[in-house]
Amino acid sequence: MAAGRDLPVSPLAVPFPEMPPVAGVLLGTAQAGIRYTAREDVTMMAFPAGTTAAGVFTRNKCPGAPVEWCRDALRGGKARALVVTAGNSNVFTGRAGRETCERTAKAAAELAGCKPREVFLASTGVIGERLPTEKLTGALPALHVALRPDAWPEAARAILTTDTFPKGAVRKAMIGGEEVMIAGIAKGSGMIAPDMATMLCFAATDAKIPAVPLQGMLRRAVDLSFNRVTVDSDTSTSDTVLLFATGQAKHGRVPADGDPRLLRDFARALQDLMLDLALQVVRDGEGAQKLIRVEVTGAVSAKSAHRIAMSVANSPLVKTAVAGEDANWGRIVMAVGKAGEPADRDKLSVGVGGTWMAKDGGVVPGYDEAPVAAHMKGREVEIAVDLGLGRGKATAWTCDLTHGYIDINGSYRS
Amino acid sequence: MAAGRDLPVSPLAVPFPEMPPVAGVLLGTAQAGIRYTAREDVTMMAFPAGTTAAGVFTRNKCPGAPVEWCRDALRGGKARALVVTAGNSNVFTGRAGRETCERTAKAAAELAGCKPREVFLASTGVIGERLPTEKLTGALPALHVALRPDAWPEAARAILTTDTFPKGAVRKAMIGGEEVMIAGIAKGSGMIAPDMATMLCFAATDAKIPAVPLQGMLRRAVDLSFNRVTVDSDTSTSDTVLLFATGQAKHGRVPADGDPRLLRDFARALQDLMLDLALQVVRDGEGAQKLIRVEVTGAVSAKSAHRIAMSVANSPLVKTAVAGEDANWGRIVMAVGKAGEPADRDKLSVGVGGTWMAKDGGVVPGYDEAPVAAHMKGREVEIAVDLGLGRGKATAWTCDLTHGYIDINGSYRS
Repeated sequence: MAAGRDLPVSPLAVPFPEMPPVAGVLLGTAQAGIRYTAREDVTMMAFPAGTTAAGVFTRNKCPGAPVEWCRDALRGGKARALVVTAGNSNVFTGRAGRETCERTAKAAAELAGCKPREVFLASTGVIGERLPTEKLTGALPALHVALRPDAWPEAARAILTTDTFPKGAVRKAMIGGEEVMIAGIAKGSGMIAPDMATMLCFAATDAKIPAVPLQGMLRRAVDLSFNRVTVDSDTSTSDTVLLFATGQAKHGRVPADGDPRLLRDFARALQDLMLDLALQVVRDGEGAQKLIRVEVTGAVSAKSAHRIAMSVANSPLVKTAVAGEDANWGRIVMAVGKAGEPADRDKLSVGVGGTWMAKDGGVVPGYDEAPVAAHMKGREVEIAVDLGLGRGKATAWTCDLTHGYIDINGSYRS
Repeated sequence: MAAGRDLPVSPLAVPFPEMPPVAGVLLGTAQAGIRYTAREDVTMMAFPAGTTAAGVFTRNKCPGAPVEWCRDALRGGKARALVVTAGNSNVFTGRAGRETCERTAKAAAELAGCKPREVFLASTGVIGERLPTEKLTGALPALHVALRPDAWPEAARAILTTDTFPKGAVRKAMIGGEEVMIAGIAKGSGMIAPDMATMLCFAATDAKIPAVPLQGMLRRAVDLSFNRVTVDSDTSTSDTVLLFATGQAKHGRVPADGDPRLLRDFARALQDLMLDLALQVVRDGEGAQKLIRVEVTGAVSAKSAHRIAMSVANSPLVKTAVAGEDANWGRIVMAVGKAGEPADRDKLSVGVGGTWMAKDGGVVPGYDEAPVAAHMKGREVEIAVDLGLGRGKATAWTCDLTHGYIDINGSYRS
């Protein structure tokens, strides 16, 4: 989460992509010294008039002040600026936390020439410590004049806490025969669980999409991406995904209530981008050495399949078995059973890396562990579960549970 | 769970108690070589005619064959023998697993002079491997002739897998002016979660209690003990708690549907014994260095308080913080919020070791971390959460999450 120590880069890291400018988006970073020293810890984005916004937030019942701020701001559906801080999450900081949000939004609004309610805020880091507001607001004027269209890599770095690599993704989509662009960055490596995660994700597009359909597409994309990944089953108080549409692209008007046919390709590209970023977060899971994909089929419904997939992905015993390169399918059976969803032991099949180990309630006759053992030694492990009951299916992703997780989280604040 | 390696004894271990005989109960152990070599791995108990039985089992949807066997046997409400094996759980073993149960019960029934359905079975250990039935049944005749009333310590050792110390407890209770005895042993150190745990618990009393009230009291005692503890949030396929009442005590008749007033003291003693054993299981949690007690008050209901307490007790981030002796109350706030139960951040208070760190949504003014830091260095850590909403309260117990857990579970089968 935040100690600012030098952790080795995750062995599952992927390279940061080429991120071309998104028409209308200006961004930049600064050192405010909120918690970290000698690194950028504030990120700002500015958007042109007419930019619409969509957001999805943590379901944690004790959200941070910035999450509450964004929920309110989202009612207007318009955005002109975003301010993100790393190192202090401004969570459980009472009235002071709310005041920090108000003052930060006011300062950014003056610079951007907009209303405070058109400024979005996000913070990540230590919970329960007051955020030094003056350091933050004091850094904004110089940051604002230096905003530029090509600072995505810098922004992707400045929002990190315990992450070991910056996370970015870009997709193109067609709307009414015109190409539009979506770019996004994310952070997160622990406290990652269903119903979002301790993660932040900021994406922008030059598409011209009203707030209502933008929100619908974002919600769906998050359900299919960030809500399918888990690192440690803990759910942060600060999870935030924001999407800004600057409307600078040349395509024709999208009706206020959307047009599924017109937006089909955009929705697909958005889902793809969000899944890309969500998987980068899992690849940077605290202590992760292996990426685990859990594929559930044959469940009574898609919802049931999703719950079973998450139960397997969240099981500490499955995750430690993968860390130990042990194809322990008994633990997978246990995790399927503990989900509480319809399951019939005698119809259940479990496989790893394309090899079925157990079928119909027992070990496969003549089961040869060799190909499974070889698969377990790789960086990406695939677990398959077939319930044999219906047509429901779902996929979830997680990482293994290693000594690295204990190292990182057993000495976080001190 | 089962590798039979020599793990260092948990620093939280408690001494095995003096366990006097329970009138009517004979017990013993043997080496069947099912998985372990050079240690006792089969335990048998025999009870006199008229013994009643009660049982509570895992809610895992993929239970082991012995669990299904016991559920059936329990319908008769009568017991004459118990056979327990350690090293192989006989789970996910299909038809072969069911046959092992049938043959074991038949062999034990012949020795005990009863029906197979009066024999109870439990197994713990590796999932998905066939249990070598002949080794088990072959060990029973010699074991049966050597049964004696004082072998509780031997039995407590023979049922262990990754446990580092044997677990036993004894209580006395009064029924109708006569003293009765309850004795119990348990095993379990991982895959411990609500809705029981990978744990086995066998208790016996000389009280003369019909099966129906015995079952009611056992269910309640388990709800207040084993269902309040968690080691790793995983739920085993084999959890079993059995209670046998031999009826050898001198107290008067208890009606078939019970008599709450007559049984009040027995119910209290049973709850106390079960909580004692459940806490011994947590004290032996895989890798545990600290026992954590989570006390939730002020919730909207007892059920809500229980869910919040378990959410805190199951949070990997809270458990690693305790391992690191870090009074990270922000993570406690997170875990309260993720429970999904009614919570108002601005009424929430969090304390450790009797010191409130945060009240009413923010840090306590002038909060002095010194006494909290000192408390965190001890072996027993107390976390208090007050929701400020109602009168619901609950307590849960867990242990910290350490490198030891990864060591034990990352190399279990191999």
